[in-house]
Amino acid sequence: MRTILVTNDDGITARGINALVDAIKDSYRVVVVAPDGPRSAQSKAITVTTPLRYWKQYTNGNLVMYRCNGTPCDCVKIGLYSIMDTKPDLLVSGINHGTNTSVNVIYSGTMGAALEGCVEGLPSIGLSLCSYDQNADLTEAVKFSKKLIEMVLNDGLPQGVCLNVNFPVGAIKGLKVVRQSRGRWRERFVERDDPAHNKYYWLTGDFNNLEPDATDTDEYAISQGYGSIVPCHVDLTHYDSINKLSNLNCDAKEI
Amino acid sequence: MRTILVTNDDGITARGINALVDAIKDSYRVVVVAPDGPRSAQSKAITVTTPLRYWKQYTNGNLVMYRCNGTPCDCVKIGLYSIMDTKPDLLVSGINHGTNTSVNVIYSGTMGAALEGCVEGLPSIGLSLCSYDQNADLTEAVKFSKKLIEMVLNDGLPQGVCLNVNFPVGAIKGLKVVRQSRGRWRERFVERDDPAHNKYYWLTGDFNNLEPDATDTDEYAISQGYGSIVPCHVDLTHYDSINKLSNLNCDAKEI
Repeated sequence: MRTILVTNDDGITARGINALVDAIKDSYRVVVVAPDGPRSAQSKAITVTTPLRYWKQYTNGNLVMYRCNGTPCDCVKIGLYSIMDTKPDLLVSGINHGTNTSVNVIYSGTMGAALEGCVEGLPSIGLSLCSYDQNADLTEAVKFSKKLIEMVLNDGLPQGVCLNVNFPVGAIKGLKVVRQSRGRWRERFVERDDPAHNKYYWLTGDFNNLEPDATDTDEYAISQGYGSIVPCHVDLTHYDSINKLSNLNCDAKEI
Repeated sequence: MRTILVTNDDGITARGINALVDAIKDSYRVVVVAPDGPRSAQSKAITVTTPLRYWKQYTNGNLVMYRCNGTPCDCVKIGLYSIMDTKPDLLVSGINHGTNTSVNVIYSGTMGAALEGCVEGLPSIGLSLCSYDQNADLTEAVKFSKKLIEMVLNDGLPQGVCLNVNFPVGAIKGLKVVRQSRGRWRERFVERDDPAHNKYYWLTGDFNNLEPDATDTDEYAISQGYGSIVPCHVDLTHYDSINKLSNLNCDAKEI
């Protein structure tokens, strides 16, 4: 029986992770190591200045669940290096409540965990539903997630590549392998006064898809009712710029 | 006079950021928005579930310094969208105390901030000294940083590209534009008992350069006494895999 390490960034009590676990726990050995509370937008943060703790939360047959006081990325590390005796066959992060298309991938705790699995050489999948409604219907997303897990376990993934998967709300027409859309957030900080008359700020903003006309992006696939699959890696090098920036090469005597 | 937004992940009192600011404050208008304490390994984490605050720390001539209770990435966002009236000409993050070559780039708060500048369309540079010694000599790193800031302000950077710059300890032979080396951490969790006999864990480990023979990487440049410059972007798409994974494209009726 193959083993899947499952984590998320919404925390161990979130509906998304529990719906996923329910759907796969009879077919696989499932080890959940998930944050003890919400850790949205934690990206690939790791905890280095305070200690980590984890607790066994639940065990039943092939399923064992741990909660951890760290980030999603910490959960993967502590799962692999402290909790599990052998490497899992697959890492799955999600199902996240919220969109991780486009530039959101770099802030996402869900994808932080999936990218960590990728660094560790595991086939890894981040799964997100494009809805912030905590009561959103997960049926379709779960069905497609289960199928994708099966396919990736059978066929593997290219070394050093993991999947950023996003599902639209409602009926899903199918899955499309696409690229990350260029995008950014236009931020606003909402200013408030606390009871002691000190100012504080809430981060908010609007997402801008910078390629609204492109048809080969995750944003487009979602807009058409498809689940988007972006193959991701952790090499941030912009190769075209290595030559373009050769003017920056210099010797100490020129400084 | 051109304006530079400066941040870091070691916090506003760190030697690295202050050495940098000292070196550039007479030539540029400098706005520092830095964390109020250490935020190492915070990657591109942003604060969405608690409010942010910031305080003016110091002002003198063309220099103004703010401390913020958020992450490095928050500092950039709040600097651009709440503190500053106009966009700066450049964003600089650092000088970080510690190595951000290879895979460290994805965990680094220093580079989290630089990548955020990049998303915002600003020429952005992350600067790191490959030493965790808080008393490390910063003279050479500051000299090269100043030169690089000058060059980037004059020539700009390709749109959507920022620089991950690392300096070796000691004399710097020059600068090399290179690619990110493949690498990973072999983690160990040090297990301890607290006074109530509950276990807790410290994350530690050893870095492994997975391409020890490559001569075009940041790891190699540093090992040869050069400062390394990796042009980075935030598109995580692994383009070669889009076709390779076309078997994952499917229609709903196949599920």
